[in-house]
Amino acid sequence: LNSKLPNVGTTVFTTMSRMATDHNSVNLGQGFPDFEMSEDLVELVSKAMKDGLNQYAPMAGLPILCERIAEKASDLYGVEINASTDVTVTPGGTYAIYTALTTVLEPGDEAIVFEPAYDSYIPNIEINGAVPVLIPLEFPGYSIPWDVVRSKITEKTKMIIINSPHNPTGSVIREDDIEQLRQIVKGTNIFILSDEVYEHLIFDGLQHQSILRFPDLLERAFVCFSFGKTFHSTGWKIGYCISTAPLMKEFRKVHQFNCFSVHTPSQVGLAGYLQNKDSYNNLGAFVQKKRDYFNQLMAATIFKPLPSFGSYFQCYSYAGLSELGDKDLAIMLTKQYGVTPIPVSAFYHEGIDNKVIRFCFCKKEQTLEKAVEKLAKFR
Amino acid sequence: LNSKLPNVGTTVFTTMSRMATDHNSVNLGQGFPDFEMSEDLVELVSKAMKDGLNQYAPMAGLPILCERIAEKASDLYGVEINASTDVTVTPGGTYAIYTALTTVLEPGDEAIVFEPAYDSYIPNIEINGAVPVLIPLEFPGYSIPWDVVRSKITEKTKMIIINSPHNPTGSVIREDDIEQLRQIVKGTNIFILSDEVYEHLIFDGLQHQSILRFPDLLERAFVCFSFGKTFHSTGWKIGYCISTAPLMKEFRKVHQFNCFSVHTPSQVGLAGYLQNKDSYNNLGAFVQKKRDYFNQLMAATIFKPLPSFGSYFQCYSYAGLSELGDKDLAIMLTKQYGVTPIPVSAFYHEGIDNKVIRFCFCKKEQTLEKAVEKLAKFR
Ligand SMILES: CSCCC(=O)C(=O)O
Ligand SMILES: CSCCC(=O)C(=O)O
Repeated sequence: LNSKLPNVGTTVFTTMSRMATDHNSVNLGQGFPDFEMSEDLVELVSKAMKDGLNQYAPMAGLPILCERIAEKASDLYGVEINASTDVTVTPGGTYAIYTALTTVLEPGDEAIVFEPAYDSYIPNIEINGAVPVLIPLEFPGYSIPWDVVRSKITEKTKMIIINSPHNPTGSVIREDDIEQLRQIVKGTNIFILSDEVYEHLIFDGLQHQSILRFPDLLERAFVCFSFGKTFHSTGWKIGYCISTAPLMKEFRKVHQFNCFSVHTPSQVGLAGYLQNKDSYNNLGAFVQKKRDYFNQLMAATIFKPLPSFGSYFQCYSYAGLSELGDKDLAIMLTKQYGVTPIPVSAFYHEGIDNKVIRFCFCKKEQTLEKAVEKLAKFR
Repeated sequence: LNSKLPNVGTTVFTTMSRMATDHNSVNLGQGFPDFEMSEDLVELVSKAMKDGLNQYAPMAGLPILCERIAEKASDLYGVEINASTDVTVTPGGTYAIYTALTTVLEPGDEAIVFEPAYDSYIPNIEINGAVPVLIPLEFPGYSIPWDVVRSKITEKTKMIIINSPHNPTGSVIREDDIEQLRQIVKGTNIFILSDEVYEHLIFDGLQHQSILRFPDLLERAFVCFSFGKTFHSTGWKIGYCISTAPLMKEFRKVHQFNCFSVHTPSQVGLAGYLQNKDSYNNLGAFVQKKRDYFNQLMAATIFKPLPSFGSYFQCYSYAGLSELGDKDLAIMLTKQYGVTPIPVSAFYHEGIDNKVIRFCFCKKEQTLEKAVEKLAKFR
């Protein structure tokens, strides 16, 4: 069998989570919470199953859930979404991204990817026969170098992938970035994929610059969201994509023959849970507290924090502290110190190593304490 | 946006289910049961959620569930599967099929599809830039015309898609079919996709000719299964694919960047439920009783049964009874008689109409009674 993805190995998340288990280390690698999710939401889903709501949901999603998603979008971003034509419920944010890229990209097309990048973008581009055009974010602020973007636009540019709050760095897109993006795509045939799975997890009073706020951008965009990241249930694999009707029509053609529909009881439960806006209104503050606590603890170590304004993640630099590459450092921290981070070079196609490691701080306080106690021994 | 799937409209299942709802008709169209699934299985999944098992499962599936799947395969088909390398849990059988076809097919490849065919195969082939080679099953027995298959093999043939028990007709593959398939693929580079989502739903003492029984075929096959079809929970969207390690390695590359992983609590629940072999041992008899009851009732109508040896489905011919095309008849039965079937021409790319409609009989007895009472009025 000729490999469709010859460059793909095991994801760094799988590798590091396995290593964490094998060495019984504190896993601050793969992005998932270790605390309990809402009991109310669990109860709603259990009730849906008991009520016998266990057969196929409609292909595009349960209408009542699509309504709730549209209400949330209106509430947060002032956008009027048509629940029946503009929203599709998906088995996770990663699947929404895959399906959007597969909807748009054809062989020979170019798609602009900023690095470090969530590890699915590039294989998703390649499996469609398209070509990733890689642009490194400015280091150490991880902002988008718009002049470089302009210089990379060609006739073949079909898509620009943005991601805010950003995985792995926690940088966020500002109003000025939106203006720059607007200037670049205006009058072109370039589509936007906006990965906003951490939409609620934004800190320090910053406002999430969702593409949903900007109708002129939304009309050429697929915007991807994740209930797993939002409600601390990453294993539920449920998210959604929002676009405008003509683009969503094409997205659904791929979706209906990829997975077809999504876990019905979860959709029923989430629809009930979203009735209460408090379900999502205080998530940023809740997670920011964890970031702050983690960073406060980390002051006892020799690692140097980079800024994080959102997401589950906080990067730390160890430049000048060790000669090891970041992968080797991550392995050493796992095996010898009992804490597992993710090496940020894994998010660069060419493995660019700025001596930065990523920690997932969306954990119980005692997990963070235990981890930092161990990390403090690294001198 | 240039459509990647210009020929795709709304699926017949969505269209007919919507029409059934709008006209409040008895829906024997889309294949899903209307009775309660196992309370024990619901309880196991609820417990998993309450126990806090709500974060990412491993990409290939929860190890304990993969073990149970391997045990079931060994129990039923005498095959020794390596649970860690040969099985991947997927969000449904449809997704397993999509992922397998995307793993194998490249632009220009040919894939043989027998018609009538489950409606995802052709778009799945086309989205990979490959070419479906359509072969009608013999009518009215819906068996595979192997001479025609031999005449359609070219240097570009990359895959043959088989499906037994067959949707929409309920025909099943026999030992002789396996021998014919073996002769055709031997010494070639042709892969097999075997859609076995109805593996347990086989009647009249027939034995399911799973590709898992035949090591020489399995080494070039992706075999797709569905817990939704098996455990009467089509809305749970969980299934799996079995192959051999080298092929599964490539399948997982696509899966890890398509959906990545599957609903954790369902995996925990299913692993527990499968411990008891009775969970799947009597399913064929249970569903056969429904087929028999439905056909017995249908004797009061003027429709003529075609044979069904497995699946959820029973086809009926109305040749000589009406001049209507099968799509128009399905619409008329929905609107004027209050029962919704699926027109079998919808399963042919070119819409070949043999005047056959498909009923899903996997329903409560009282649903079948109500439906047939209405259908008996059609004269
Ligand atoms: C889908 S596994 C990766 C989880 C995640 O988003 C991350 O850790 O970066
Ligand atoms: C995935 S929706 C279709 C269900 C089904 O298999 C059928 O009705 O044929």
